[in-house]
Amino acid sequence: MTTTLSIAEAEGLVAEAMQRANVGEAQAASVARALVAAEACGQGGHGLRRVAAYSAQAKVGKVAGTASPLSERIRSGVLRIDAKNGFAFPAFDLAVEQLPRMVAETGIAAAAIRNSHHAGVLALTVERFASAGLVAIMMANAPGAMAAWGGTKPLFGTNPIAFAAPLPGEDPIVIDLSLSKVARGKVMAAKQKGTAIPEGWALDKNGNPTTDADAALAGTMVPAGDAKGAALALMVEMLAAGMTGANYAYEASSLFDDKGPPPALGQFLMVIDPKAMGGDGVLQRFGALAAEIASEPETRIPGRRGQEGRRQAAAEGIAIEDDVMATIQAV
Amino acid sequence: MTTTLSIAEAEGLVAEAMQRANVGEAQAASVARALVAAEACGQGGHGLRRVAAYSAQAKVGKVAGTASPLSERIRSGVLRIDAKNGFAFPAFDLAVEQLPRMVAETGIAAAAIRNSHHAGVLALTVERFASAGLVAIMMANAPGAMAAWGGTKPLFGTNPIAFAAPLPGEDPIVIDLSLSKVARGKVMAAKQKGTAIPEGWALDKNGNPTTDADAALAGTMVPAGDAKGAALALMVEMLAAGMTGANYAYEASSLFDDKGPPPALGQFLMVIDPKAMGGDGVLQRFGALAAEIASEPETRIPGRRGQEGRRQAAAEGIAIEDDVMATIQAV
Repeated sequence: MTTTLSIAEAEGLVAEAMQRANVGEAQAASVARALVAAEACGQGGHGLRRVAAYSAQAKVGKVAGTASPLSERIRSGVLRIDAKNGFAFPAFDLAVEQLPRMVAETGIAAAAIRNSHHAGVLALTVERFASAGLVAIMMANAPGAMAAWGGTKPLFGTNPIAFAAPLPGEDPIVIDLSLSKVARGKVMAAKQKGTAIPEGWALDKNGNPTTDADAALAGTMVPAGDAKGAALALMVEMLAAGMTGANYAYEASSLFDDKGPPPALGQFLMVIDPKAMGGDGVLQRFGALAAEIASEPETRIPGRRGQEGRRQAAAEGIAIEDDVMATIQAV
Repeated sequence: MTTTLSIAEAEGLVAEAMQRANVGEAQAASVARALVAAEACGQGGHGLRRVAAYSAQAKVGKVAGTASPLSERIRSGVLRIDAKNGFAFPAFDLAVEQLPRMVAETGIAAAAIRNSHHAGVLALTVERFASAGLVAIMMANAPGAMAAWGGTKPLFGTNPIAFAAPLPGEDPIVIDLSLSKVARGKVMAAKQKGTAIPEGWALDKNGNPTTDADAALAGTMVPAGDAKGAALALMVEMLAAGMTGANYAYEASSLFDDKGPPPALGQFLMVIDPKAMGGDGVLQRFGALAAEIASEPETRIPGRRGQEGRRQAAAEGIAIEDDVMATIQAV
């Protein structure tokens, strides 16, 4: 069974739950917008199911629900943001507010976010810049789940990379991918159901292929593209954590329970004015490539599924499963 | 049979051959440094075997051997470089000279390079920034070889992404990977030998898996990590070509023959001062992650193989196969 709520109603529901967990009003609104948008774009794993863990962490102070992110413009193109162990989304809001002004001056600018939390659906953040005519690249680290190639220690998170660019007369292109072959959530789901996982998804703690979900969760996820995904995950750790002053994946506490210190994860955002790079014709050139992709019957422009989902949710509301509704109401 | 030459001798050999093909003295020296370094670091496919195609293209003007790249600092963080359909390496030299000064001011800066040519081994270019204490990310497009996910048209190149970051007291970490599952050169080698290729490397022109090298070369390469690699290749096309004003992969002429107009490819380089992003402790943090990787017996720090190769070549020279020597001497 499900309950269908409008976007505004769902945001209100989540924001009130977060406030009951001692999250500040503005912070709760930011979190609610992000989780409801994730749900609307079909990314339920980063959506309303997170309210339970978020509120539990806020209640014990593992995430500082009333923290306001602090930004400092260290150089003309560099914004350092201390998320102060609060939620990540208020820090992203600050970057969305400040980076475009910096880019107008410098052409390219970056935000280095530290002491941060779950980054959610990166697509939603980079798309905000693309909707303003800018190109954005974002990387986030996450608690340890993947090994260096050939290794067994979960040194890296599944570490997403996202990219968005504006197109003339249509929604932006939005790419958002994690660097594991499959999402870790699929292994957790198999564990709950007591089923095996396909070979090729994960390695056990000794680095051997496994089809056992428990062994996989005690081990590491296989990187997308094998050694190449592992190398890119290392790059993301260095940019999003090493360079920002955040915890590395292997130092971060879980995003799913209320135990231990704050995860203190990191995110790195680069924003570019495409017209500064390539002149006024750039958007038309972006459109030409998109048209080539769209001209093939079996392909699609990345980002369209999420954008359609959000449009549909805006028109028809989102259906919230009863068990999810119960956890939100129980906060 | 092989002939062993010192680095300086090999560079002289290549530079003289390029000058016989009407390449300017400074341009020839830049090309020679890049090709010899590629050979030394074990990337023969981007090394001395390229002299034949490079010189043939320079002789007919497909590459403008005497062109000097022109740079324009459009915004404080943006350098536009017109490689003027000359070789790419003089344009990279210009970026290596100018970006660090810009980064000192802005913290992050980018070079958008258009009307360019074969990017060679990207690792060699990004490492030059890391050796100066900076972080660099580089992307390059290349003639069409991969399809959008689900498609059949070779819209994207195999489009490498490279990354380098300094480490305290040791060589930089250097990542350099193309976004195809295997290098296209492996398919070309199979074609020359008349052998089959393993399933999973390539698709025929209808998008079906093939083990036939000819069918593969008429089709597309499988992206690393399947849909994820295809998405990243699209990102690279947009950044390295769409945004710089270069040809897309599907518009570019071959890098291997002397037919048609200049390839007019593009490259995108982002350079960051890691201390501006994360403070003075950043290099120690980079080192801590590298130490974790190095602590496992079966892993390695990306970039070490190439760095060792270059050290060995500097000490012992490089062995040039007779057939390669013959093509260089025949220019």
